[in-house]
This record gives sequence, structure tokens and C-alpha cells, in this order.
Amino acid sequence: MLAKHGFISAFGRLTSLSPSSSVLRRQQFLVRTLCGSRIHRPKLIGAMSSSSEADAESVLRIVTPSLDPKRHKGQAGKIAVIGGCREYTGAPYFAAISALKIGADLSHVFCTKDAAPVIKSYSPELIVHPVLEESYSISEEEKRKVQEKVLGEVDKWMERFDCLVIGPGLGRDPFLLECVSKIMVLAKKLNVPFVVDGDGLFLVTNSIDLVKSYPLAVLTPNVNEYKRLVQKVLNCQVDEQNAEDQLRSLAKQIGGVTILRKGKSDLISNGETVNSVSIYGSPRRCGGQGDILSGGVAVFLSWAQQLKSSPESPFENPAILGCIAASGLLRKAASLAFTKHKRSTLTSDIIECLGESLEDICPAS
Amino acid sequence: MLAKHGFISAFGRLTSLSPSSSVLRRQQFLVRTLCGSRIHRPKLIGAMSSSSEADAESVLRIVTPSLDPKRHKGQAGKIAVIGGCREYTGAPYFAAISALKIGADLSHVFCTKDAAPVIKSYSPELIVHPVLEESYSISEEEKRKVQEKVLGEVDKWMERFDCLVIGPGLGRDPFLLECVSKIMVLAKKLNVPFVVDGDGLFLVTNSIDLVKSYPLAVLTPNVNEYKRLVQKVLNCQVDEQNAEDQLRSLAKQIGGVTILRKGKSDLISNGETVNSVSIYGSPRRCGGQGDILSGGVAVFLSWAQQLKSSPESPFENPAILGCIAASGLLRKAASLAFTKHKRSTLTSDIIECLGESLEDICPAS
Repeated sequence: MLAKHGFISAFGRLTSLSPSSSVLRRQQFLVRTLCGSRIHRPKLIGAMSSSSEADAESVLRIVTPSLDPKRHKGQAGKIAVIGGCREYTGAPYFAAISALKIGADLSHVFCTKDAAPVIKSYSPELIVHPVLEESYSISEEEKRKVQEKVLGEVDKWMERFDCLVIGPGLGRDPFLLECVSKIMVLAKKLNVPFVVDGDGLFLVTNSIDLVKSYPLAVLTPNVNEYKRLVQKVLNCQVDEQNAEDQLRSLAKQIGGVTILRKGKSDLISNGETVNSVSIYGSPRRCGGQGDILSGGVAVFLSWAQQLKSSPESPFENPAILGCIAASGLLRKAASLAFTKHKRSTLTSDIIECLGESLEDICPAS
Repeated sequence: MLAKHGFISAFGRLTSLSPSSSVLRRQQFLVRTLCGSRIHRPKLIGAMSSSSEADAESVLRIVTPSLDPKRHKGQAGKIAVIGGCREYTGAPYFAAISALKIGADLSHVFCTKDAAPVIKSYSPELIVHPVLEESYSISEEEKRKVQEKVLGEVDKWMERFDCLVIGPGLGRDPFLLECVSKIMVLAKKLNVPFVVDGDGLFLVTNSIDLVKSYPLAVLTPNVNEYKRLVQKVLNCQVDEQNAEDQLRSLAKQIGGVTILRKGKSDLISNGETVNSVSIYGSPRRCGGQGDILSGGVAVFLSWAQQLKSSPESPFENPAILGCIAASGLLRKAASLAFTKHKRSTLTSDIIECLGESLEDICPAS
């Protein structure tokens, strides 16, 4: 319990408004003792060293902020999902609602006009912007003007977001993807981190420069998306015998972006270290779990960014911490949902277990 | 318990259809004993004196009417929310459903045509009027005619409402806001009270005459909305050292409207007294809690208006009573929801706790 509270307090320090310097020193001491300094990290060694199992529960405790009554709306995270088209509406909803259920304050969705009323109807908690357009709804002559309008709509919100999730239910319409590639450029310009999943990975795999060397980009490929990424970037097949080295090479080749390769064990690398998360889990493979993960990475990455902003923070890579935390939490929630619902476990059931799972690891008070 | 029932009976008197005069005298005695006369209000002193903590639970007990089987639909309150546009649908839903969950009989929403089907889909309990229009859907030539039509649609309902909530999810479309400013003028003409929140505050801050000197107007600004209001009206910055005096000056400057300044403690002033509500609460800052508050103020203000309509009533300002009651109830419900859901608490969870929280303070039977 001492360890647990030490971790929480360590982050609480960063969010409280006027901590005393003795409290600061004590918390810093606890972080160092429990997580190790920059050089020695005995407890989190799994999270930081090459090719080993991360201590996901400890990372969750470190990254998750304490809840301070003095804070106001938005300070615990403002997330936006870019996704949702005529065909897909569930995926962006899952990503956006997961962000809220984990503890973000505000969750937006930018989707097509057709998708918006449906996504809105899933939950009044989301702010849904019907701004994207697909080719079928516009003429060739309108395209340039429409693209400018779409970008203008996203631009006026961009600086408010702590992280984007790009891709859930995006579809593959060429005009829409062109707009989304410009949204990525805009996010990079403003240093807004983003998580790329689903059809966003289709876009990125074909235009790798969109994410190359952007340290605040996280890619979360599943088996097939990873296969295409390896083929395209490394020009070879997936090598399961040297999975960790290959992942490291891939992340390095893309200029140090963070990749979370989803699988029986999740593997995470930024081209330097490789971490795995293998705890818990469920044998159920219902569609949508990847969307929970992408929403979760966005929230934990945002929180880890706040943590990093402390000048004395020993944590250097918020993207890796975000991936480890989200992977660990999703696995715990999936495991809990499976004990309750067995074969009939659906993604919504797992989302309902996010709060209980996080509370179990990292009590709110 | 005697005290609690005394308060309830005291209000029951005002709403029952044919109480005997001995019952009336007994209830009047109880109100005087428990709340004080116009001159001495020992129990509610906190609610009425300058700059002190209100006794929100006692106010809730006084304001909430007893449930009388002889009453008919509508007598416990008819509320209308003006809000909901292409972008926002959750906020007006939260305000309108909260009004019902607290105990109003009927809750209407006047929103744009795009927003209406979505808001309707959240709940069959609401009456949703798709009457507002945004600039994008009409031509310049149509504007005057459309505005007349919008006002006509609202006008035919206006007199039936006990209170309006103007602003949740209204958006900032200039044409829509122009229509809403005319709806405010109409409400004032008919002496219908209104609570202004969200984008309604954006409108009012830029056109302060819309609410100036209307004693039945309540403004419920959050941190940023308050900052803009202070800058615009008092032409200075927010002064946290003299928060209560500044709030009093602001309310006075706007001609005695009631302002509920949301924060760690809610501060309430009509330019004369300043009351605070600091009880309960939750550290979760998920978006939408302000909408619950605005819906709640509308209901409690309506009930306090009925209370005031008694010639012998010791209560002079229903807007202040409404604000104290709504603030206290929201805080209690948020606290209860947080004990159940912790970090994953969402606005819908808080709404689900409104009934239990009110029942705990003020049992229905």
C-alpha cells in the first residue's frame, strides 16, 4: 500500500496546485525508490529494459493521476477520435466512450455526416462533429473547397485536444483519407500526439512519411495490419522467431514512432526498448477490443505527458507508458468481463469493466 | 423527522387544493419556527445572510413540494430547454432529463431539425420540438421568414412553461443565436423565468441587455464563462481574493439577476446576498454536469416560485433558493455516483443518482 500510494502521490504532486517542497522531495524519493532513477529502475525494469515483460500494474499506478477537487473540466484529458463513416459507427464510439470510462473529461468524435446521428445516439456523453465527407457525397469540382472546410472545422478544435485517435471506423474512401492525412499534418504541426489504428493504419502504411520521425505517434497494428506494415517498411515477411528484434527495427525505421503490436502478448517498441504485456486476457476475440485499446492509449499517453512535463520526472517516453498502461487495463477488463459473460462477452461488456478494473489496480481515493 | 416533515408540509400547504385553515396555520407556524420569519431566519441564516454557506439540505426540503394525489399532470413543473444543434445533442438531453428525474412533470426541448431525432432517441420521456434553424440550412432571403416561424412555434408554448433553460448545446451559429435572443425577449414579456448556461452565456455576455434587470434570470457560468462575463461587464479580471464581493458587484451591475458561479464551492448572488454551497461533491470533472445543474435550477426555481406565490411566504427570492437547492442536490448525486463508479463516473451515472439523493434528503412519503 505504501508503494501504491507513493506512486499515486508522485503523480498527484504534478497535478496539485501548490505542493510544498518537502512533499515534492518525499514523492520524488518514492518514485525513485519504487521505479528506479533514470539509471536504475529496479521495480519497473520490465517496463524499461529491452525485450522483457512490463510491470503494467505499476505503470498504471504511476500514470493515472490522483483526483483533485480543485481541478476543472478538461484537466483530466480531452480526447478526439477521427473516424466513423457511412459503413462503420461502432468503432469510433468504442474508442471514444472507453476514453471517458477510463477517466478522460471530454471525448469528441469527428466523423462523416451520415455516421454522426448514429454515433450520437449511442451515448449523449460524446461530442460528435459531423464534418468528414466521403467521395460519394461530393462532386469532383467541390473537392478542394470541401477539404478546406473539413480542415477548418478540425483546426479550430485541434489545440484543445491532448491526444487524437485516428482510424477507428474510418473506412477507405480516398477523398476522406486524403483529408485525414492533412489532419495528421496539422496535429504534428501543433505537437498533438495521435494513436493510429484500423483504417488509419491502412493510410499510414501507404504513406509512411505521415508518421515518420514523429515521436508522439503511436501505431497499434493487429496481426494483418502488422504484416502489411512489415512488408511495406522492412520489405520482408513477419519473423516470429525474432519478433522483438523485428519490431524494434520497424519502429526504428519509421524514425522512432511507438508501435504496439497486438497479439497473444502485446509487444511495444519505439525502436530502442521492447516491452511485452502478457498478463490476464480473455480468449474471446469479439470485434471492437482494438478500439478500446486505442482510446485507452490516448488517455494514458495524455496523462503520461503531464507526468513528463515535470522537470524532475524520470519518465521519458509517455507513448510507451501509455501503451503499457492501456494494454494492461484492457487485458484485465477483458478477463473480468469474460468471467461474467463467458462466450457471450461483447466489447460493450469489456468497456463496462474498465472502471472496476482500474479501481482494483489504482483506487480513486 | 419532525423538522423534515414540517418543511415538507409547509410547502404542501401551498400546493394542496383545499387545506383547512387550521392546517394552514399549523404549517405556517412550522415554517416560521424552522426557517425563521422575514426578520429572523435562524435555521436558514446561512442561506440568506451575506457570504456564508447555505443550508442546502434545508432549502431542498422547503422547496420540494409534497406529492399530492389530487394534483394533475404539469403541476409539479413544466420545463423547456432551448438548445441542441448539429454539433451538440448530449447537453440539452442532460438538462431536460435531469428536470424530469428531479420531479418535474413535463420536459420539452426546442432544438434544430438535425438534433431532434438524436435527442428523441436518447429518451422517449422528452418532448422534442425540431424548430430551430442554423445558418447553413437556410438562404439569406429566407432568414426573416424563418425567424418569424421559429418564434411562432416557441410562442405558442411559452406561457405553459414554468421555467426555461437557455443554452445547453446551443452552438454559436449567429442566426440561431439571434432567434434565441428573441425567445429571451418573449420569455421576459410573459414573465417566464429562465436559466442561462453554456452557449446561452456566450450570447448574453455579448448582449447583456438581454438579461439586465430581469429578476427571473439566472446565469450559471463555469470558470471560463465567468471570466468572460467579469471582463465584459466589470471591465476587469477575476479577483479570487475578493470573489464574493466581485460576484455581488457583477450581479448588481446586471440589475439584480441571480448568478451561480460554479467552482470548487458554488457561489450564488443576486447583487445583495452571497451564498455558497460547498457540501458533498466529487472530484470527477466529466463534461455534462453543468447541464444537470441548469435543469435542476429550473425545477427548483419553479417550485420556489409556487412557494413564493403564497401571500404569507417568508421566501423572497425563488432564483436563489433554486440555485442553492440544485447545487446541493447535484453535489450529493455526484458524490453518490462517484462512490459507485469512481473514475469511470459519467454524467448519466450522476443523473441516475438524482432520485436517490433527493429521496435521502427529502423523502417523497
